[in-house]
Amino acid sequence: MTLTSTVPPRVRVVEVGPRDGLQNEPVVLSADARAAFIRRLAVAGLPAIEAGAFVRPDRVPQMADTDEVFRRLEGLRGPVLSALVPNRRGMERALACGVPEVAVFTAASEAFARHNINMGIEESLTQFREVLRLARDHARRVRAYVSTAWWCPYTGRVAPAAVVRIAAALVEMGCYEVSLGDTIGAATPREVSSLITQLTETLPVAILAVHFHDTRGTALANVLAALSLGIATVDASAGGLGGCPYAPGASGNLATEDLLYMLHGMGIETGVDLDAVAAASRSLGGALGHPLPSRYLQAGPPGGA
Amino acid sequence: MTLTSTVPPRVRVVEVGPRDGLQNEPVVLSADARAAFIRRLAVAGLPAIEAGAFVRPDRVPQMADTDEVFRRLEGLRGPVLSALVPNRRGMERALACGVPEVAVFTAASEAFARHNINMGIEESLTQFREVLRLARDHARRVRAYVSTAWWCPYTGRVAPAAVVRIAAALVEMGCYEVSLGDTIGAATPREVSSLITQLTETLPVAILAVHFHDTRGTALANVLAALSLGIATVDASAGGLGGCPYAPGASGNLATEDLLYMLHGMGIETGVDLDAVAAASRSLGGALGHPLPSRYLQAGPPGGA
Repeated sequence: MTLTSTVPPRVRVVEVGPRDGLQNEPVVLSADARAAFIRRLAVAGLPAIEAGAFVRPDRVPQMADTDEVFRRLEGLRGPVLSALVPNRRGMERALACGVPEVAVFTAASEAFARHNINMGIEESLTQFREVLRLARDHARRVRAYVSTAWWCPYTGRVAPAAVVRIAAALVEMGCYEVSLGDTIGAATPREVSSLITQLTETLPVAILAVHFHDTRGTALANVLAALSLGIATVDASAGGLGGCPYAPGASGNLATEDLLYMLHGMGIETGVDLDAVAAASRSLGGALGHPLPSRYLQAGPPGGA
Repeated sequence: MTLTSTVPPRVRVVEVGPRDGLQNEPVVLSADARAAFIRRLAVAGLPAIEAGAFVRPDRVPQMADTDEVFRRLEGLRGPVLSALVPNRRGMERALACGVPEVAVFTAASEAFARHNINMGIEESLTQFREVLRLARDHARRVRAYVSTAWWCPYTGRVAPAAVVRIAAALVEMGCYEVSLGDTIGAATPREVSSLITQLTETLPVAILAVHFHDTRGTALANVLAALSLGIATVDASAGGLGGCPYAPGASGNLATEDLLYMLHGMGIETGVDLDAVAAASRSLGGALGHPLPSRYLQAGPPGGA
């Protein structure tokens, strides 16, 4: 048996560029520009797009007017659109503009949670219970991010047991999916295998997703390790937009194009048109004033094909 | 069984930066600078270093004075040093300055061979037989590269059967190792698994090495696929130096630092000091006048560790 014999035949790619990507760009785009980008990603066939965040515009100006973005996307066919909500207030704003799905964000490292979301892990889980209650009342699905699932920029390696405990709590309170984040792009495949193996002792693999950063070049190797254990949902950011401004040394979400290139090369279906994603990223790179880091975007398809 | 349970406990990293890397840099370094770089790589613990090439200096000025480089490295302890030789004349030059090991270079794609080494594959094999004869007479080991083992920039996908045939011929004529090159960085893990599986039906896995380019971000995922099938020799280029000037769209050999970061993170021994390699690359980047592309070199070690 080879590792590639155990990968799933189809992978769901969750596009996080319009939120996780753009919120880390210095240039603030208008709601019009963001909605146009999301439309192009939708036409490319991405099945799930995180379109914005209901956070404080004074803290994250890039995500201001997320309600306007959703308004412009009303009636959009194709992808499930979602928005990040930090708490009940964010959830109320999301409900007010008819957002079909939301995501909550915590960390497996206490130090990172305090730096990044200004509260401890337990407090974040308490806030999420209120979000989940509202979501249940309004029939909305909630996705959860567990950042620093392998490494923390402040405290180093994170114990898998911490991730298992938090993931279990998130599932228990009703989150339909838990996305494991390698926030500073430090994980390697054996750590990925180890954590997923421990998580799937008590949780079904179908509720897990992975979210890698390509900071040290290991993102696709980590995806491969996750796929070989049955993970079939992978987050990625068009063009490799974003990173994490609160994490020293963090750079580069895994680029959607690089992920699609590998998956399609392996015969794994995604339903996404790689070249259409690349075209969307290229036009956005123009608006942001710099080329995006995706390697595929720079190299293009191999010649002679 | 997970993929990471089948990887070898130790990997031999073959450093190709001083040859494959530098020969693709526009700046021509002196023999002194090249020898100093190789000394630093040797001190870092790299077990095998390709130190130069006995090719025509009018065609590849970066590799001129390779004999001077070897002279400066006489008595160097630690790594096995080698040089690329295209033919008998190159082999005679290598023998004249006491090079302990040589490498020959061909392709699995006829079109690429004609563009890159100005002869067909069969003609290259004929030339190598003369090199191997001299090598046997002087008790030298010969390594072989099969470039475009998966993709050709001119003709697209390469049939595994072509690689199997050429690898078998190279082993039959006495090469101790065959390094499979993804010259334009287009391969994905399933193609890597497939080719290695086919090769190991008739050849021992221990004679195979892999040589990936990170052009589309898949290099480390491809390494992982190869390791999980028992491959234990991986080529890499310090700092990610090099590429292939004859291959449109080619860029970036897999960086030694990125490879070491993943291997060490997986608990795989290499005997190499990652930070010492990074320091050597950084000083070379200074001499070349531009930062080198290795992701680890740019990001550094994860914090808090």
